[in-house]
Amino acid sequence: MAADKKMVEQITSMDVDFAKWYTDIVKKADLIDYSSVKGCMIIRPYGYAIWERIQSILDSRFKELGHENIYMPMFIPETLLNKEKEHVEGFAPEVAWVTHGGEEKLTERLCVRPTSETLFCEHYANIIRSWRDLPKLYNQWCSVVRWEKNTRPFLRSREFLWQEGHTMHATAEEAIEETVTMLNVYADFHEQDLAIPVIRGRKTDSDKFAGAEATYAIEALMHDGKALQAGTSHYFGDGFARAFGIQYTDRENKLVYPHQTSWGVTTRMIGGIIMTHGDDNGLVLPPAVAPIQVVIIPVAQHKEGVLEKAREVEAQLRAAGIRVKLDDSDNSAGWKYSEYEMKGVPVRLELGPRDIEAGQCVLVARHNREKTFVSLEGIEKAVQDCLESVRNGMYQRALENRESRTYNCTTVDEINAALAANGDGFVRAMWCGDEECEDKIKELTGVGSRCIPLQGEAISDVCACCGKPAKHLVYWGKAY
Amino acid sequence: MAADKKMVEQITSMDVDFAKWYTDIVKKADLIDYSSVKGCMIIRPYGYAIWERIQSILDSRFKELGHENIYMPMFIPETLLNKEKEHVEGFAPEVAWVTHGGEEKLTERLCVRPTSETLFCEHYANIIRSWRDLPKLYNQWCSVVRWEKNTRPFLRSREFLWQEGHTMHATAEEAIEETVTMLNVYADFHEQDLAIPVIRGRKTDSDKFAGAEATYAIEALMHDGKALQAGTSHYFGDGFARAFGIQYTDRENKLVYPHQTSWGVTTRMIGGIIMTHGDDNGLVLPPAVAPIQVVIIPVAQHKEGVLEKAREVEAQLRAAGIRVKLDDSDNSAGWKYSEYEMKGVPVRLELGPRDIEAGQCVLVARHNREKTFVSLEGIEKAVQDCLESVRNGMYQRALENRESRTYNCTTVDEINAALAANGDGFVRAMWCGDEECEDKIKELTGVGSRCIPLQGEAISDVCACCGKPAKHLVYWGKAY
Repeated sequence: MAADKKMVEQITSMDVDFAKWYTDIVKKADLIDYSSVKGCMIIRPYGYAIWERIQSILDSRFKELGHENIYMPMFIPETLLNKEKEHVEGFAPEVAWVTHGGEEKLTERLCVRPTSETLFCEHYANIIRSWRDLPKLYNQWCSVVRWEKNTRPFLRSREFLWQEGHTMHATAEEAIEETVTMLNVYADFHEQDLAIPVIRGRKTDSDKFAGAEATYAIEALMHDGKALQAGTSHYFGDGFARAFGIQYTDRENKLVYPHQTSWGVTTRMIGGIIMTHGDDNGLVLPPAVAPIQVVIIPVAQHKEGVLEKAREVEAQLRAAGIRVKLDDSDNSAGWKYSEYEMKGVPVRLELGPRDIEAGQCVLVARHNREKTFVSLEGIEKAVQDCLESVRNGMYQRALENRESRTYNCTTVDEINAALAANGDGFVRAMWCGDEECEDKIKELTGVGSRCIPLQGEAISDVCACCGKPAKHLVYWGKAY
Repeated sequence: MAADKKMVEQITSMDVDFAKWYTDIVKKADLIDYSSVKGCMIIRPYGYAIWERIQSILDSRFKELGHENIYMPMFIPETLLNKEKEHVEGFAPEVAWVTHGGEEKLTERLCVRPTSETLFCEHYANIIRSWRDLPKLYNQWCSVVRWEKNTRPFLRSREFLWQEGHTMHATAEEAIEETVTMLNVYADFHEQDLAIPVIRGRKTDSDKFAGAEATYAIEALMHDGKALQAGTSHYFGDGFARAFGIQYTDRENKLVYPHQTSWGVTTRMIGGIIMTHGDDNGLVLPPAVAPIQVVIIPVAQHKEGVLEKAREVEAQLRAAGIRVKLDDSDNSAGWKYSEYEMKGVPVRLELGPRDIEAGQCVLVARHNREKTFVSLEGIEKAVQDCLESVRNGMYQRALENRESRTYNCTTVDEINAALAANGDGFVRAMWCGDEECEDKIKELTGVGSRCIPLQGEAISDVCACCGKPAKHLVYWGKAY
């Protein structure tokens, strides 16, 4: 940001145009920039610092659960991609193909990985021999490419950053347990660290990952009432193992197939943060992933003692492990307020001559602008408490938005009436399990199945579409 | 590793076949595996954990110096790559080309980034306006692709992991200072953390990076007397800025071009570690980047109290921040010794019933197998001291290898005689600065110019080749 930029530019109001509001924020909060590479984004330092926080927290959790990081080639030869039938049918239409290396045409074209199941399976076939080699709990942080037609920063781009976990287990039970464990890791991370409430559920068959036996997902509701699939965890059974000839000798000395999972979250989560917490003043970041948790704004900073005290407070907070920035630039305090609101810094600490005299300062929470006067003595604790209450307040507000936009409906007519009266949101409605009804509900109401929640009681006995006995409660919604 | 593998397999002796010894180690120490993607490697968990340690140390140093991480697209449109003439001539012959996205042929082909100067420059042109926007100190951790014909794990592969720093400065002086500062960061990291002594120098014009005004490098000498370029730092002047139209308004309100640098190190460093420190028993890892710094091997572990004590020591060392592993598997102690020697764990801690009775244990340094009896009281401090002395011992040994293989020569005949008598190594010889002499020395002796050292006194007044007045002392060698 240039120091001579005296006014923070306005962004489009979210009520006027939510899509434009979103792209205004990603640009004006310095999260991304565009380049001449269509459909890809430059993740700028402020955006990338959010990703680094996300990586650091998740990576620790993965490792605590025994996962190891690994790095696979970014290319997949066409014959390797083709080995598992459903998988290739799902991905081949949207991959980027490398056909030449230097001046030479390749004898076999290579795709840039859209996901790495095939590479992991080829490797597993080399290294898994005995039950003693299991489980294999691997993870990879990398970028992947899917040749999307319509792209939006973070939400859908041709290249994106992610982690992909790939595990192999001796039994189906163990693999299913891993699938659910990792779904819960994602859910907890969203709820605790990102302050985003999520529904944990299973995808219907029509929406499963290419090659999976079951796909689990967490679904979040954005501020505009649209759903965002925020993370997925897949159970593969032994389908890939059979296709790739991965077998191990079990304790009874029999040759059997292992059972597999994969699970991933992406930079899309940053889009979820923006659309869950952001407002017309810009970004609102959850403290756990905010590159700057507290910005100190000195008031009347030219007056004697103000900057000295501000630096002292900065040092105290930093020593307490808080990510703090003191803005002592010569921009006006008002400009600074707007700038760090745009950047979504969770807490602003204002400190002026009269505050110092009174031995206090002002904490302002970004998400609701509430001001609190706190004593400078023990300021670290007060700021830590404030960050904690900001996280809680953000979560509560997001949960209230979701609850007020979740509609229990027993018929297609009720679905249409609820959406017409209250706007987009989650529809909870029963389903017979028939794909025809699933399609018909989408056709008649505009909301598609998001997931079959792992928890949630039946709200009626019959399918909202056909009236036949219902098998599942389903969350329906319009999706990003 | 399978628990039923009772013998650690032998590797080829380095004196018999250094190249085979190297590939034996990368496979048997579980650093890499091959896949059907030719010229690329799978970096396995143990190898990747070394890279994670390298990343963590360097990333902190970069950030302390004010650098910010960023993420650029992995693709570069052909027209963008073509913008700087020397750059494209250097890289175009060795890039991988994406020509299709899904079923469609692209209107313009994209290369997979071999390096990202062009992308950074395009971005800089968008975001640099005023002297207040400078310097820009950016870094990126990613993988890059160069379509090499002959590949070897870590040393030269079609895809490799690296970091690329890209900075823009108001003046040439500042940019040159940055270039040298980052060279020194690399040199210090190699010497302190990797225990690899390096020569800091400047490349001759024939060996500069494509598009650079000056390329600096650190050069290390491997165990076999061959040189390894271990890191480079480039000063670009304003060449790219002119090609990309990057200008800023200076303090006198004039529109001028900024000055640029880039610098990088890669997974090749892991190859450098292997070839500097390894021996016929396997890998030898410097403590700073060893995934396991200390392995505890209980002796007679079935005897009462042994495992309990071993776990206690493990907990103590872990609490002191030491990366420790207790191997309480039912493999023999002898097997464990061999296994962790192969893996290069810097220190082995042996603990048996008699040791426990005597209140002591045995520390064995991997690099020289020296045994020390130390008291269990204050074991953390003893282990930390041991790790420090292992690092010093490894550095000293590598330095002695280099010194004993560095030959001062004043003529081509002397170069040939020194190499014939002592084997491959660094040749220090004077050079007139003429490219013809540079080529001729390589032709007549087999050693090429590695760098003009930043420090080092003239050893004669005349060029070792033509006898005309010498301009530079040069390090010559056979390179990986």
